[in-house]
Amino acid sequence: MKALRYENKKLSVSDVSRPDDSREALVRVTLSGICNTDLEITRGYAGFEGTIGHEFVGVIESLPDVSEARPSGRAANATEPSLTAGLLTRGQRVVGEINAGCGSCDLCRAGDPRHCSNRTVLGIVGRDGAHAEFLKLPVANLLPVPDEVSDERAVFTEPLAAACGILERARIDDQTRVAVIGDGKLGLLCAQVLNATGASVTLLGKHRNKLEIADRRGIETLTLEKAKTRIRAFDVVVEASGSAAGFDLALDLLRPRGTLVLKSTFHGATNFNAARIVVDEISVVGSRCGRFAPALELLKTNAVDVESLISEKHSLSDGLAAIARAGEPGVLKILLRP
Amino acid sequence: MKALRYENKKLSVSDVSRPDDSREALVRVTLSGICNTDLEITRGYAGFEGTIGHEFVGVIESLPDVSEARPSGRAANATEPSLTAGLLTRGQRVVGEINAGCGSCDLCRAGDPRHCSNRTVLGIVGRDGAHAEFLKLPVANLLPVPDEVSDERAVFTEPLAAACGILERARIDDQTRVAVIGDGKLGLLCAQVLNATGASVTLLGKHRNKLEIADRRGIETLTLEKAKTRIRAFDVVVEASGSAAGFDLALDLLRPRGTLVLKSTFHGATNFNAARIVVDEISVVGSRCGRFAPALELLKTNAVDVESLISEKHSLSDGLAAIARAGEPGVLKILLRP
Repeated sequence: MKALRYENKKLSVSDVSRPDDSREALVRVTLSGICNTDLEITRGYAGFEGTIGHEFVGVIESLPDVSEARPSGRAANATEPSLTAGLLTRGQRVVGEINAGCGSCDLCRAGDPRHCSNRTVLGIVGRDGAHAEFLKLPVANLLPVPDEVSDERAVFTEPLAAACGILERARIDDQTRVAVIGDGKLGLLCAQVLNATGASVTLLGKHRNKLEIADRRGIETLTLEKAKTRIRAFDVVVEASGSAAGFDLALDLLRPRGTLVLKSTFHGATNFNAARIVVDEISVVGSRCGRFAPALELLKTNAVDVESLISEKHSLSDGLAAIARAGEPGVLKILLRP
Repeated sequence: MKALRYENKKLSVSDVSRPDDSREALVRVTLSGICNTDLEITRGYAGFEGTIGHEFVGVIESLPDVSEARPSGRAANATEPSLTAGLLTRGQRVVGEINAGCGSCDLCRAGDPRHCSNRTVLGIVGRDGAHAEFLKLPVANLLPVPDEVSDERAVFTEPLAAACGILERARIDDQTRVAVIGDGKLGLLCAQVLNATGASVTLLGKHRNKLEIADRRGIETLTLEKAKTRIRAFDVVVEASGSAAGFDLALDLLRPRGTLVLKSTFHGATNFNAARIVVDEISVVGSRCGRFAPALELLKTNAVDVESLISEKHSLSDGLAAIARAGEPGVLKILLRP
């Protein structure tokens, strides 16, 4: 099968054998989405080598024998999606949570493998990813896609879940004033998820055409030059620009005792003014992956516009060009079709 | 009166007139304590000029007329200590909260002037401080000292309250594994306050003689070289060393989704690995001032040993030498007697 792989510091579309693991489900990928993390990996982030990609929608090609479905030590209720595992059948449309835990540590047993220290992560840590014709994942990671949700929408489940993850890390309700910094894919998803909670949301960015996607959903938008008019005006600020300048701006926008959610995995060392965090008693909270169920619900109820984020669709064979294109300024989501 | 002042980039013991404000209480200082923030101010931190010092115990010299006691706009219940204001009389021993709010903003009206944007702060922001024969503070800031608490113990109320402030910023109970980094004055107070909650506390530091103060209170202590044996072993880590190395070590010691409390106002830019905060979903929370009432209670019930932290007492006239001494390695608290 074809797969977009990063190996020996080189990216290529390669012919490799299908994943084969009798204990996991085999999924035929219908669409996959290129994330900035994919781009980071092709720059050497996390030292990953293998098939990249972790955003996908697909169809179940095969399921393991029930007797083999649970690796030894995996608790019956190890992960939330396993509740639905019994409903999965061959041919079913699915999306899949990307963290696969060991199944036996305290975290996995508590139903959340996202911080299992022995986890693999689809296309990121020790597990081949989604920019391929087929992928494998534990059955417990798969969730059926509701009929109402098209493939083009379902492929956004993973990044949308990541945006929903903010709600696990900061208290946000209809009284909360939230700013989101960054009008890229991630910022646009975060702003929409937060807007759906009833919070008062302001999206700050550089690009009028991107901000308009949020405008159309009734979200207040502001160009970065205007940010200075809103000093200390927000209870929560989500940094989704991935730049050190975004971090400094976030501190400017927060009220004392406010919460700064770091959503972007920007890399290398960042300079920050620790005294400011202490004097204003700011909370800086990291947020990575979210659960899929709330994201699927938002897609099912049309609470978010993800179609407007699709810039282009490419064939997996043109993976190299697609990755290059995804890194160009102004481009939002690039989808790959195997 | 004599006062230890920082002006025109110079520290001196000067003769100045007594503070005079008919709307505030005048307090004759009995003892004051030198804090690292005092040392920072003499290096130009916060641009403060005037009498330094914010840790004190004293005796009420005069109270304002009731009609003048509340500046216009100050709500009757503006700050917690005002509840006790009616109990204050001339000659009474008192300690005083250091943040004096405007009295009319939302924060002040809600009873907490610590983040009022127009606040003055004793010996730190726009208000002469405690290394002097007399100081003034709003009546609402003063709390009577229980008879059981000696002056030598009461002078620790402010830094002990700052340590108690951690409990406002991180959830800590008898199931929590907490590490405190730094065996200076602040670290020793934090470790003891946290220990009093029933949490499992480990203090990490460099100095055997300082660690022993915590040892004697039944707190586990560990030299920094041994820290590597406890990677990811703590739910909460309190950074009280004020060094960038302490920040990195704190991230090493925390479990995923753990909380790093920044207690030291270390200055200048600090480098940090933002990706790590995101991937492990760490919370970094700043903590500055705490409320005085819980600290006085800890002193009253002998739940903390503060006497062992007193290195020396100096006369206010020798203020310059005392400040120099406070900056030497191995020295803990230096007290000044006017």
